[in-house]
Amino acid sequence: MMRKLSRAIAALGLAAALAVPAAAAPKAKYVFLFIGDGMALAQINSAAVYANAMSSKEIAIKPLGFSKLPVSGLTTTHDASSFITDSASAGTAMATGNKTLSGVINMDPGKTVKYRTIAEEAKALGMKVGIVSSVSIDHATPASFYAKVPSRSDYYAIGEQLAASGFDYFGGGGFLQPKGKKGDQAELTELAAKAGYKVVAGKERIMALRKGSGKVLAVESLLQDASALHYDMDRPAGAASLADFTRVGIELLGDAPKGFFMMVEGGKIDWACHANDAASSIKDTLAFDAAVSEALAFMAKHPKETLIVVTGDHETGGMSIGFAGTQYSTFFDKVAKQTMSFQRFNDEVVKPYKDKAKKDEADLADLLPAIKAAFGLELGDLTPLQQNELQFAFNRTMGNQVVRAAAEDAYLLYGGYEPLTVKLTQILNQAAGIGWTSYAHTGVPVATFAKGSGQELFGGLYDNTDIYRKLCSAMGIQKKN
Amino acid sequence: MMRKLSRAIAALGLAAALAVPAAAAPKAKYVFLFIGDGMALAQINSAAVYANAMSSKEIAIKPLGFSKLPVSGLTTTHDASSFITDSASAGTAMATGNKTLSGVINMDPGKTVKYRTIAEEAKALGMKVGIVSSVSIDHATPASFYAKVPSRSDYYAIGEQLAASGFDYFGGGGFLQPKGKKGDQAELTELAAKAGYKVVAGKERIMALRKGSGKVLAVESLLQDASALHYDMDRPAGAASLADFTRVGIELLGDAPKGFFMMVEGGKIDWACHANDAASSIKDTLAFDAAVSEALAFMAKHPKETLIVVTGDHETGGMSIGFAGTQYSTFFDKVAKQTMSFQRFNDEVVKPYKDKAKKDEADLADLLPAIKAAFGLELGDLTPLQQNELQFAFNRTMGNQVVRAAAEDAYLLYGGYEPLTVKLTQILNQAAGIGWTSYAHTGVPVATFAKGSGQELFGGLYDNTDIYRKLCSAMGIQKKN
Repeated sequence: MMRKLSRAIAALGLAAALAVPAAAAPKAKYVFLFIGDGMALAQINSAAVYANAMSSKEIAIKPLGFSKLPVSGLTTTHDASSFITDSASAGTAMATGNKTLSGVINMDPGKTVKYRTIAEEAKALGMKVGIVSSVSIDHATPASFYAKVPSRSDYYAIGEQLAASGFDYFGGGGFLQPKGKKGDQAELTELAAKAGYKVVAGKERIMALRKGSGKVLAVESLLQDASALHYDMDRPAGAASLADFTRVGIELLGDAPKGFFMMVEGGKIDWACHANDAASSIKDTLAFDAAVSEALAFMAKHPKETLIVVTGDHETGGMSIGFAGTQYSTFFDKVAKQTMSFQRFNDEVVKPYKDKAKKDEADLADLLPAIKAAFGLELGDLTPLQQNELQFAFNRTMGNQVVRAAAEDAYLLYGGYEPLTVKLTQILNQAAGIGWTSYAHTGVPVATFAKGSGQELFGGLYDNTDIYRKLCSAMGIQKKN
Repeated sequence: MMRKLSRAIAALGLAAALAVPAAAAPKAKYVFLFIGDGMALAQINSAAVYANAMSSKEIAIKPLGFSKLPVSGLTTTHDASSFITDSASAGTAMATGNKTLSGVINMDPGKTVKYRTIAEEAKALGMKVGIVSSVSIDHATPASFYAKVPSRSDYYAIGEQLAASGFDYFGGGGFLQPKGKKGDQAELTELAAKAGYKVVAGKERIMALRKGSGKVLAVESLLQDASALHYDMDRPAGAASLADFTRVGIELLGDAPKGFFMMVEGGKIDWACHANDAASSIKDTLAFDAAVSEALAFMAKHPKETLIVVTGDHETGGMSIGFAGTQYSTFFDKVAKQTMSFQRFNDEVVKPYKDKAKKDEADLADLLPAIKAAFGLELGDLTPLQQNELQFAFNRTMGNQVVRAAAEDAYLLYGGYEPLTVKLTQILNQAAGIGWTSYAHTGVPVATFAKGSGQELFGGLYDNTDIYRKLCSAMGIQKKN
């Protein structure tokens, strides 16, 4: 309507008479930036196709909530060192508008200049700032909004900078080096407490937080791998979800007189895709969508002052809805039969078996019931080729009978993951019609969606560094980087 | 500016006072619909990365011309029978707004109801209509704008309907069954001539066409496979390009008093991706971009009345800029070493060798000079794994020494293509950091770009059937389907 109106006005020759400085546009006061790590069109659409296949026999796609936001753009993601970015340089691009090397957070490629982040700009304007992630809170993407380090692996330094940030809310996973690399430094949660943070652990306490709590560091107690929240499909009933952490953030920051900036990362979409585990990617993407829904509910109460931007930092895995063996068909109901992530299968099935079984007595047959329970796969369903591949992967997992042992071959086949497990998810994915080209990130552009005050800035094709500039424009920040 | 203005006006409370019926918006008089067959984000961005890698050592992406059009949208492509469409149902969706079965053109899934196409609607409004394709002019995508058949393989019937269409310009490749399936029916070019078409063959005559020529059927004389134009990288100097056919269309239709609708298909992007040949996909995508440039040049002279929409009908191949073996790196300079398409290599190298060599005397060494000339690959550059794969593919191409002969295995490895050639493009692509998951189409959404009168309709996420409805809105057509 607005656009039709503007066209009509132009046609009537009124444009010149009515010209008003751009500054008259209202500033976005409540700003959400949602980042699906590793999430591009294949991740988004596979989740939508899955959700449809679960609810209907019809061939139709009911889009995810966030992909229905009214404005969409396409975002290139290369960094200063490669057409395929990592999450540190991608985070730096979105948080500061600068390209840097893979692995570097908020410093220039020479690793001397430090960049100011949009979250710091927001804080300087008097806004409150929240940072939420489903992986460890010191991981590259969340760290890109509050830390400046030459290497994303400087986890303790990142934790120290978190404590010193003055930001109002951190929520999600824990720290990777809570007492430093050697375990001999001050506990990071204690540093945070000294800096004035209320440190809260566990879902019950986290969900009980109310406005006026002051600065909060909320860490889920029930963590899975690498201090991250569980894959959403593995999440215990007593663990807070990404949507829960988002809702708590809105409770804590929602009445800030000068508004807020909140970054929410769905971090395990990426981890699932690195491991070529489509079911985990799909379910974490749906959990990410649920987190965006919390922001949409807030926006419904503050429609004119809220901006929601949803993007990905890069694609992971070269995921596609289409595999050579299934040609023009898909069978997403097969994905629904997977009951746990590759990680939980490793932790609960493969590792105990490896610890127990003697190498020369190991037998794939021992694991078939667990494989059926976890992936819905029975040996009889597999082609002879797949059966051979699975046996070979099992042999490699058990460290015996390895005949094709070239390192190159092994990496291409398993990408450094537990061979048996990655082969199981690949076989299941291929049966469903989902293919992968890599265990790393890829250079395919991501999609960006926006709704609210300043949404019109986010259409068209642009670079991830432009996300920073567009957010600055929407928030009325004078760009300094 | 317009959007900022509209926001400002809204803020000033003038909106209501100035409200004007939507009908006041000017109609798009000159409408281009460009369809890159098989072209989604990976195809577009690989062409942009390639163009950059050829011109600079810097890691940067200079977007293709069409991807810089100001409005971008995301388009889902599933059809009535599968989440993975074919070009017939995708063409039907865009031309008529209806979902149908794969393989069906402009008829309902029951194959009884016929749908009216947007090109026919345009004609009924007094606009001129042009249909251009780089593949045969009776292929699924171009046919979807003028024919209605239960099967896309009904090529002769499609040709008859072309002759009877009354459309003003057809340009590109030839007919697949010029005298019918058995070769005993009236020549389609003669039917067209009888129906009043000036039938013009060969670049020189085609490029000499001038406005006032009446109805024209322009067919390139120098064709490659299946009555299609050459892959652009194989195109002889004397053959017209897709941009040439577009320019001729603009010459013929550009001064139509009531405007025109022109559909231009880049059809061999799809064929290249089916064969997992990235170099041919990239160069045909660049040729497609050059065709869009012709429309942009026309638009520069008619800025307010022109609408350019660029989309894809689906993704092909599960292409990704990222491969397990190259992880976070890409080496697009390797793609530049490919000097001919897989098709030309088959025609000029593999087929003559197969015709000549005796099975038991065939030796991969005989072809190594030709392989180096065509793909820049030397045996010494390959890993032991790749060398084995290449030797195995050669054996299969020559029909001997085939040890792993399961049909399943062969399809996964070669997708029905000449084993040696598809293995060569796959090895080259993988060395460049480009991966594939399929030899068929995939269900990943495509990108749509728009500029001009009605461009604002093409933002956000929507279905390919909505392309029809949006075009109708922009052109002032009362939707009938």
